Amino acid sequence: MITFTYRIETSGNIEALAAKIASDQSTGTFVALPGETEELKARVAARVLAIRHLPDAQQPSIPEAGGPFKRADVDIAFPFDAIGTDLSALMTIAIGGTYSIKGLSGIRIVDMQLPDDYRGAHPGPQFGVAGSRKLTGIVGRPIIGTIVKPALGLRPHETAEMVGELIEAGVDFIKDDEKLMSPAYSPLAERVKAIMPLILDHEQKTGRKVMYAFGISHADPDEMMRNHDLVAKAGGNCAVININSIGFGGMAYLRKRSSLVLHAHRNGWDILTRHPGLGMDFKVWQQFWRLLGVDQFQINGIASKYWEPDASFIESFKAVTTPIFSPDDCSLPVAGSGQWGGQAPETYERTGRTVDLLYLCGGGIVSHPDGPGAGVRAVQQAWQAAVEGVPLANFALKHRELARSIEKFGDGKAA
Amino acid sequence: MITFTYRIETSGNIEALAAKIASDQSTGTFVALPGETEELKARVAARVLAIRHLPDAQQPSIPEAGGPFKRADVDIAFPFDAIGTDLSALMTIAIGGTYSIKGLSGIRIVDMQLPDDYRGAHPGPQFGVAGSRKLTGIVGRPIIGTIVKPALGLRPHETAEMVGELIEAGVDFIKDDEKLMSPAYSPLAERVKAIMPLILDHEQKTGRKVMYAFGISHADPDEMMRNHDLVAKAGGNCAVININSIGFGGMAYLRKRSSLVLHAHRNGWDILTRHPGLGMDFKVWQQFWRLLGVDQFQINGIASKYWEPDASFIESFKAVTTPIFSPDDCSLPVAGSGQWGGQAPETYERTGRTVDLLYLCGGGIVSHPDGPGAGVRAVQQAWQAAVEGVPLANFALKHRELARSIEKFGDGKAA
Repeated sequence: MITFTYRIETSGNIEALAAKIASDQSTGTFVALPGETEELKARVAARVLAIRHLPDAQQPSIPEAGGPFKRADVDIAFPFDAIGTDLSALMTIAIGGTYSIKGLSGIRIVDMQLPDDYRGAHPGPQFGVAGSRKLTGIVGRPIIGTIVKPALGLRPHETAEMVGELIEAGVDFIKDDEKLMSPAYSPLAERVKAIMPLILDHEQKTGRKVMYAFGISHADPDEMMRNHDLVAKAGGNCAVININSIGFGGMAYLRKRSSLVLHAHRNGWDILTRHPGLGMDFKVWQQFWRLLGVDQFQINGIASKYWEPDASFIESFKAVTTPIFSPDDCSLPVAGSGQWGGQAPETYERTGRTVDLLYLCGGGIVSHPDGPGAGVRAVQQAWQAAVEGVPLANFALKHRELARSIEKFGDGKAA
Repeated sequence: MITFTYRIETSGNIEALAAKIASDQSTGTFVALPGETEELKARVAARVLAIRHLPDAQQPSIPEAGGPFKRADVDIAFPFDAIGTDLSALMTIAIGGTYSIKGLSGIRIVDMQLPDDYRGAHPGPQFGVAGSRKLTGIVGRPIIGTIVKPALGLRPHETAEMVGELIEAGVDFIKDDEKLMSPAYSPLAERVKAIMPLILDHEQKTGRKVMYAFGISHADPDEMMRNHDLVAKAGGNCAVININSIGFGGMAYLRKRSSLVLHAHRNGWDILTRHPGLGMDFKVWQQFWRLLGVDQFQINGIASKYWEPDASFIESFKAVTTPIFSPDDCSLPVAGSGQWGGQAPETYERTGRTVDLLYLCGGGIVSHPDGPGAGVRAVQQAWQAAVEGVPLANFALKHRELARSIEKFGDGKAA
C-alpha cells in the first residue's frame, strides 16, 4: 500500500473532496461504466484512510470568492499493484489529476509512505555521506565548500585562476554555480581542462583531493553523459546537476552510468513549497530524488539569502538524513546560501548536533577581509567552536580569522 | 537575446526587485567580488528591458502581512551566449533563483521570446498535425478519440474487449488513461499483445488504422525505450507520455529514438498555472515541450471537468498552434476532459474555426445511450453542425445519434 497525505482546502465538503481524489486517481471517471465491477475496484481502487480536520484558512490559497475555506489532512492509500515501483507512475498518481480537481482552493502533498516493495527497487545514492567523506578525506567536521563567483561570465582561465586560489586556501569542495553549464564563453571541456590539473597537482603535493563539482546538466541525457565522461576522464569526481531541469529521465539515466558524486541543485523547486497551501512538501519530493540517486542535496541554510525560513531548512535537513529504507539512501545535506561561520552554532544545535554535512560558503569565504585562506580557517574555527559549545565571540578571542570574519559578516552583511 | 517576462508582486520596490532578478540570474552574488569586471558584465549580465506597472493585488499571492502589493510585468533580457540552446540551461535561468528570491509575494513567468539562434537547435515534433492526419487518414474534420475507462483496473483481455468495441464504433484514436503505465495486473507487453491484433485486423479489413496511444512512460529512459519498442514492433504508432513525470531528460532521449507519435499528458502541470500570481503560463511552458518534440498536446477543453476556465483552454489552444519558428513546430491540440459533441460549436468558433485538433471524449462516447458507435457518430454530427454553422438542436432534428446524445449529456451531465 502506498499512502499519500494531501492537505486539502475547500469551501465545499472535505469528505466529498477526499473521496473524489481517491476515485479520480484510481478507477474514477465522470460517468458510471459497465466495466466497473467490484472485483476491479478491489484490485486498484484508492481508499481514504483518515481525515484530520484543521482550522479554516483565513484566505483561500487560490483566489476564490465565498468561504469558509475548510482544511484537512487526508491520508489516501493506493494498492501497490495499481502503481508498482516506477517513480514516474508514482509521481503521476501523486500529482496527475490531483492538482486539477475542481472545487478546491488549496492542495499540498505533505507526506508519502512507501511500502517495503520499494526497498531495493531503485539505485539510491552511489556515494552519499560515507562516499563524500571518503573522497574528500574529511572526518570529524563538516566538509567545507565554496562556489566560484561571479555566477556567470568568467572564462575558463579566469575560473581556473580563482580555483587555484581557493585550493590554496584549503577548501574541501568547490562548485560551479548551478547556472553555469556549458555556455559559449566557458565550454565545459575547456573549463575541465583548465581546472583539473590544478586539483591533481594539489593532490600530488598534499595527498588531498579537492572535490570539484562541474555543472554537467543538459536536457539531452546523451549530452549529459558526454559531459560526465569529460569530467571523469580528467580525474574529476563530482558534478552539479539541476534536477528540476533534467527531470527524472535525466537523473535515472545518469545515475545508472555515473562514476561521479551527484550534487543536486533544486533549481525552481521553490514553486512547489513556497506557498504553504499549495504544491508539495520538500519532505515528499526529496524521496523521489534520493531513490533516483542524489548523493548531495542542496537545502539552503540558517539565515539564507532566499525566502526559506530557518524552520523549513531544519525540516529539509531532517528529511534528507532520515532513512527511507536504510541509512544508505540518505543524501549528504548541503547547507548553503548566505552562509559564513556565523551560522555554525545554530546549524549544529538545530540539526541534532551532527557534523555530517557539506557547509557551502560563497562570499562568506572568498570575501573574507584577509582572503579566502583566512575565510576557510574562519569557517573551520566557527564549526570547532560550535561543536565544543563555545560562543563564537569567545572563541574569536584566540582565533583571529574568525574574529575578522565576525567583524565583516557579523552584522548580517553576508546574508 | 533571450527574453523572459516575469509578472512580479511585492510590497517593496518593483524596480529594485526587477533589477535583483536580472542580477541574481546572471552575474549576481551577495557581496561585491574583485573578478566582476565591466567586460564580464557585458558578456553575460541580464538587463531589465521594460517594466509595465499593473494594478495592485488585493491579496498577496503568497500569504504575507503588510502591503500594498504592487505588481508589474517585467521584461528581462539575457545575452544568448550566457545560456546557449540547451533547454535545461534555459529552464534553470528561467526558474532557478527566480522563485527563491526574498521580498516578493508573487512571481509568474508570463512570456518567453527565443532568439533565432534556437531555430533548428531542437528536434521539435516528428509528426505533429500533418503526421497525425496522415497516420489516421482523417481529413476535413477533427480526429475523434476516446479513452479506455475505467482509468485503472482492467486486465489486458478486458481492455482488449473494450478496445474491440471502440474500434467497431468507428473511433479514430484510442488511448490508455495516463495513469495506466505498466502495473502488475496489466503489464504493457500483455496489453500490446492483446490490443494490437485488433487494430491490425481492422486495418486489414477496412484500410483504416486506429491510432492507439499506449502508456509507455517510465522514469528510466532505458525502460521507456523498451516500452516504445514493444509498441513499435507490434505495429503500434502512438504513445501517451506523462511529460511532467519523465522530465526533459526522458523526453529528449525518447524523441531522438522514437518512431511513435508522442501524445503528451501534462500531469501535474496545473500547479504551475492554477494560481494566477504564481508559477508559469502554459504559453511559456509548452514551448520547451514542443521544442523537445511533443506531437499531440492535451490541453483540456470547453466546459472541462477540471478547474481550468474556458478562456485558459482557448489560450492554450492558441499557444500550441502558434509557430515558434515554423508551422512544423506546432503540436496537434488535444481537447479533452468532459467532452461530448455539445462543446463542438464553441470549440470551433473560439479556436479560429479550425478542425485541426484531436477531440477526445471518454464517457461522452462510451456512455452514449445507444452505445459507443452511436457516440462516435453523434460527435461527428456535432462537428459537422459546428462547421456548417447549424445550431446543434436543429441539426439533431435529422440526426438521431446527436439527438440522443443531447438528451443524455445536454444538461451538463457529461461535465
